[in-house]
Amino acid sequence: MSARPRSATGKARLSTTKVALVEAAVDVLRAEGFAAATARHLAERAGCNQGLVFYHFGSVNELLLAAMDHVSAERRARYDAAIASVHSPSELIELAVRVFSEDVASGDAALLVEMIAGSVSNPELGTAVKARVEPWSEFATGALRAAFERSPLLGRMGADELADAVVALYLGLELLSHLDRDTTKAIAVFEKVRSLSSLADLLAPRLP
Amino acid sequence: MSARPRSATGKARLSTTKVALVEAAVDVLRAEGFAAATARHLAERAGCNQGLVFYHFGSVNELLLAAMDHVSAERRARYDAAIASVHSPSELIELAVRVFSEDVASGDAALLVEMIAGSVSNPELGTAVKARVEPWSEFATGALRAAFERSPLLGRMGADELADAVVALYLGLELLSHLDRDTTKAIAVFEKVRSLSSLADLLAPRLP
Repeated sequence: MSARPRSATGKARLSTTKVALVEAAVDVLRAEGFAAATARHLAERAGCNQGLVFYHFGSVNELLLAAMDHVSAERRARYDAAIASVHSPSELIELAVRVFSEDVASGDAALLVEMIAGSVSNPELGTAVKARVEPWSEFATGALRAAFERSPLLGRMGADELADAVVALYLGLELLSHLDRDTTKAIAVFEKVRSLSSLADLLAPRLP
Repeated sequence: MSARPRSATGKARLSTTKVALVEAAVDVLRAEGFAAATARHLAERAGCNQGLVFYHFGSVNELLLAAMDHVSAERRARYDAAIASVHSPSELIELAVRVFSEDVASGDAALLVEMIAGSVSNPELGTAVKARVEPWSEFATGALRAAFERSPLLGRMGADELADAVVALYLGLELLSHLDRDTTKAIAVFEKVRSLSSLADLLAPRLP
């Protein structure tokens, strides 16, 4: 928790509480999971009154979605920067392997899996969570277009469907890794894909 | 619930109860989800005393795993039969599309997703559930070998890693479809794969 300036106005203090609650939700989802993310526990972690969860977010689920948005925005900024240097399938695959490893190490993969698992029995939350996966399909479409720049192959494969498949694959691998906290298989899949990337480059010749 | 023969011995009656509990667990996981699968509710559905859940299975989780095994065995028998007629990538893709559609329609996809989601916060159950995904990786390896029969391409791609990727993709698509009960994207991915199957056949020429 960062020290708050003494001169903080009421409004600034409220906003600090809001940020603290989002950070608490991120930490709890990463380390303890969806089931542990109760209003009481999140408020304790944020050092505030439980009522402020509802004052600021309306419900625990809305706070958890805000935590998801917060992490997504951070990841997106990082990956938008990384994608600028991708100009071939092999460069995209290198990036994908890095992203997966970073997401597992940071707990972002766990957070995503926990939110998805937690929302399976709640269709309203499920719809909100699925809507938050959507931008990643768009991101994957952009990344694929960058990697297969000017190659006619991507059009044939269908960039949108391929992007959806990549996101689903990614999610499935994270889910299986999270179940027994074992990333061996996921890493083996990525390593295999990496070893094939020179083949992918041959399949996607750039036009002059 | 089927009528029980009047002449049933005590042992046969017990075994009928056990079957009824497994069937109740299958029905509840498919239609209501993991959270609804309590000992009380499952016993009610099976028309027996709650204590018999523990007598026969030791715990609710063991009963749910037995339900998973029951469904897996049925599916496996169906797909082992279907795989016998697969001799090319396009035939495999046709089968994969059919399997996915059937699993969504029957509720088997929902059952799998519910078990996975329910076990995310329980590493012991998670490990047991992941172990039950493993045979599907082996099945996928066999199916890929049948489809790419005598083609050198599969060896290059790595049958095991490709099989793991197919299972993860399948799981990810089922999960996303289950979140908002919308299979549109998953079907679009499969339709695209289907439209590419003639290309896959060209890439996997059979040796004479």
